[in-house]
Amino acid sequence: MRIAIDAMGGDNAPGEIISGVLESIDLLDDIDEMIIVGPQDIIEPQLPSEKSRKGSISVVHAPQVIDMDEQPVESLRNKRKSSIAVMAKMAKLHQVDAVISAGNTGACVAAFQMRMRNLPGVNRPGIAVVFPTFEGPVTICDVGANIACKPINLYQYGVMAKIYSKHLHGIENPRIGLMSIGQEDAKGNEIVKKARGLIKSDPKMNFVGNIEGRDIFKGVCDIAVCDGFVGNVILKLTEGLVDGLFKAIKHELSTEKLRLAMKFKPVIKRIYKKYDYNEYGGALLLGINGTALICHGSSKSRTIKNAILASKNFYTKKINDKIIEYLSQTSVRTDDE
Amino acid sequence: MRIAIDAMGGDNAPGEIISGVLESIDLLDDIDEMIIVGPQDIIEPQLPSEKSRKGSISVVHAPQVIDMDEQPVESLRNKRKSSIAVMAKMAKLHQVDAVISAGNTGACVAAFQMRMRNLPGVNRPGIAVVFPTFEGPVTICDVGANIACKPINLYQYGVMAKIYSKHLHGIENPRIGLMSIGQEDAKGNEIVKKARGLIKSDPKMNFVGNIEGRDIFKGVCDIAVCDGFVGNVILKLTEGLVDGLFKAIKHELSTEKLRLAMKFKPVIKRIYKKYDYNEYGGALLLGINGTALICHGSSKSRTIKNAILASKNFYTKKINDKIIEYLSQTSVRTDDE
Repeated sequence: MRIAIDAMGGDNAPGEIISGVLESIDLLDDIDEMIIVGPQDIIEPQLPSEKSRKGSISVVHAPQVIDMDEQPVESLRNKRKSSIAVMAKMAKLHQVDAVISAGNTGACVAAFQMRMRNLPGVNRPGIAVVFPTFEGPVTICDVGANIACKPINLYQYGVMAKIYSKHLHGIENPRIGLMSIGQEDAKGNEIVKKARGLIKSDPKMNFVGNIEGRDIFKGVCDIAVCDGFVGNVILKLTEGLVDGLFKAIKHELSTEKLRLAMKFKPVIKRIYKKYDYNEYGGALLLGINGTALICHGSSKSRTIKNAILASKNFYTKKINDKIIEYLSQTSVRTDDE
Repeated sequence: MRIAIDAMGGDNAPGEIISGVLESIDLLDDIDEMIIVGPQDIIEPQLPSEKSRKGSISVVHAPQVIDMDEQPVESLRNKRKSSIAVMAKMAKLHQVDAVISAGNTGACVAAFQMRMRNLPGVNRPGIAVVFPTFEGPVTICDVGANIACKPINLYQYGVMAKIYSKHLHGIENPRIGLMSIGQEDAKGNEIVKKARGLIKSDPKMNFVGNIEGRDIFKGVCDIAVCDGFVGNVILKLTEGLVDGLFKAIKHELSTEKLRLAMKFKPVIKRIYKKYDYNEYGGALLLGINGTALICHGSSKSRTIKNAILASKNFYTKKINDKIIEYLSQTSVRTDDE
C-alpha cells in the first residue's frame, strides 16, 4: 500500500510528521510505501540517510505550503504546488492509495473532494472523528466537511459511520443516534426531523432516535450523526473543556502539598490517556473515492503514526467497497439533492 | 417584588422547589412576596404552618402538571390549569413580577412568550445561560428558545446578553463572540456570516469576531452568541462531559488506596464547585416582556434559591428597560423578519 503524507501540515510540521513516519515503519508491512510530500530541501535533511533508512520512504517535492488559516478554495487555486494539492492529484492519478494531512482542514476537504471525487451513491462526504469516551468509542460524523446538510446527507453519514464503526471498532451492530435538542420525535429543526424519517425507514440501521449533547458521553450510542457546523462545535468544545478541566485540576493540585500532588499525577495521567484523541490518529473523510485522513493541527508524531496505521486499516478492510454496496442496495432516497 | 414559582417543575419537584423558596426568604426583602403555583393539596402540607412561616409566601392553586417530556404547545392547549400556564397568565395580568420554573423548557418558552409577549424591538426571545468557566462567567445565548435563528436574532442576542452581562456580572464592556467553525470572516454558514456583518456594524458592540467551541473555556469572550440548536447541544454536551470526567476521576480514584482517594476528594470538590451551574440558579429568557427564569430539570433547593435571587437582581436592575432603550437607538436593522 502506498501512503502519502503531507510533511507541512499542522503546527508541528515537518518535525513531528517525519518522526511519525519513521515510527510507523516498523509497524507496516514490507510492501508498504511511505511517500512524504513537501519541500524536498526541508524534508531530506531530516530523514536518515538512504542507506540507513528502514522500509520504503520516498519524498515527492511540493514547494508550496498552505497555511492553517488560509482560505481553502483560494489557497488551492493559488498554490497548485502545495503539498495538499500535490497529494490530492497523486490520489486522483492512483499514484497513492491513501493521503494524510494535519494541515488546513478546509483545504484538505476541498482538494480531496475535487480530485478524488465522491464514492458512487454518496451525495456529500463527511468527516468522522472518534471520541474515546468513558463508555467506549463514539464516532461522530460530520464534524466540518458539510455545514449545510440535507436530510439525505445525514442519513448517509449514519450509513458510512455504521460501516466504519463495525469494521474498524468491531461493533457488530452500532447504535446510531441523531443529534438534536430533545429525544422526542417532534424535537429538532426541519432537516433533523426529515433525516430522522429517512434513518428510521431503513430497517438495517440500529437507530436509537434523537440524542442530546450529553448522550455522547453516556454510552447510549456508538455513532452520533450531525451536520458539520454542529459537529465542529462539538469537537472543539470537547477539546477546550477537557483541556480546561485538566488545567483546573493541575491548578488545584498545585495548591496542595507537593508530595500529595505527585501522588495524583499518575491518576490524572491515566484518565487523560483514556480520553486522548491522539490514539485514533485522525479523522476520516468518509464518502470520498479513496482513503483520506485529516489529523488535528496539533498532531504529534504518535498521532501521525496512528493515522498511518488507521489509513492502512481502512484501506485493507475495503470500507469504501462496503459503503458502495450498502448504498446501492438501500431504498432510502430523496429528491432533495 | 412578587415572584411566582412553579412548584411542579423538574425532577425534584415539589420538595426541592419548596425548600428553595424557604431558603430564599431570609435573603429577600420584607416587601418581597413569594407565590408558589401548583396543586394546593400537595404544596400546603409541605409548608410550615402559616403562623410559623417567615416572609410572605402564598399558594396559587394550579391542579394540572405538564410533564418534562410532553409536547410543549399541545400540552399547553390541553392543560390550561397547569402551573406553567397559570403562572404565565398571572405574569400577563401583572399579578406577578417574575416567573420561575424548572419544568418543561419548551412549554415554559411557549407559555411565557405567548402570554408575556416580546419586549418592544425584540424579534425573538433567547435563553441565556451562564457557564462558570475557569476564566470567568461566559453567557451563552440562545440555548434552545429559537432553533431557526435569523441574523437579526443573533445580533439581538448579542445586545441582550451584553446588557445582562454588564449589569449582572459587572463586566464593563463584555466581549462578544459569534459561535462558528473557524475564526476567519469567511467561515460559517450564511446565517452566521450575515449576523457577523450586523454585529460588526454596531460600534457599541465589543465584538471579538467568530469563536470556536473551544474558545468558550479559553477566556477569549464574555458572551457567546449562537442559534438555539447549537446552544442547546453546547449546554448538554458540557453537562455530559463534565459529569463523565468526574465519574472517570472517581473511578480511577477507587482503584487507588483509600487513604489517597480520601485526600483527593476535597480537591475534586473544589473544582466541581467552581464549575457548578447551580450557582447561577437558572437561565433567563431574554427579550420577554417580564422576568422569566427557566431552571435545570435536576435543580436542587440551592438552584431554586439562587434563581429566586437572580430574578430579583434582573428585575431590580431594570435590564429590560435597558434592552428596550438600546434597541430603540441602534441603527442595525434587517428586513428578514
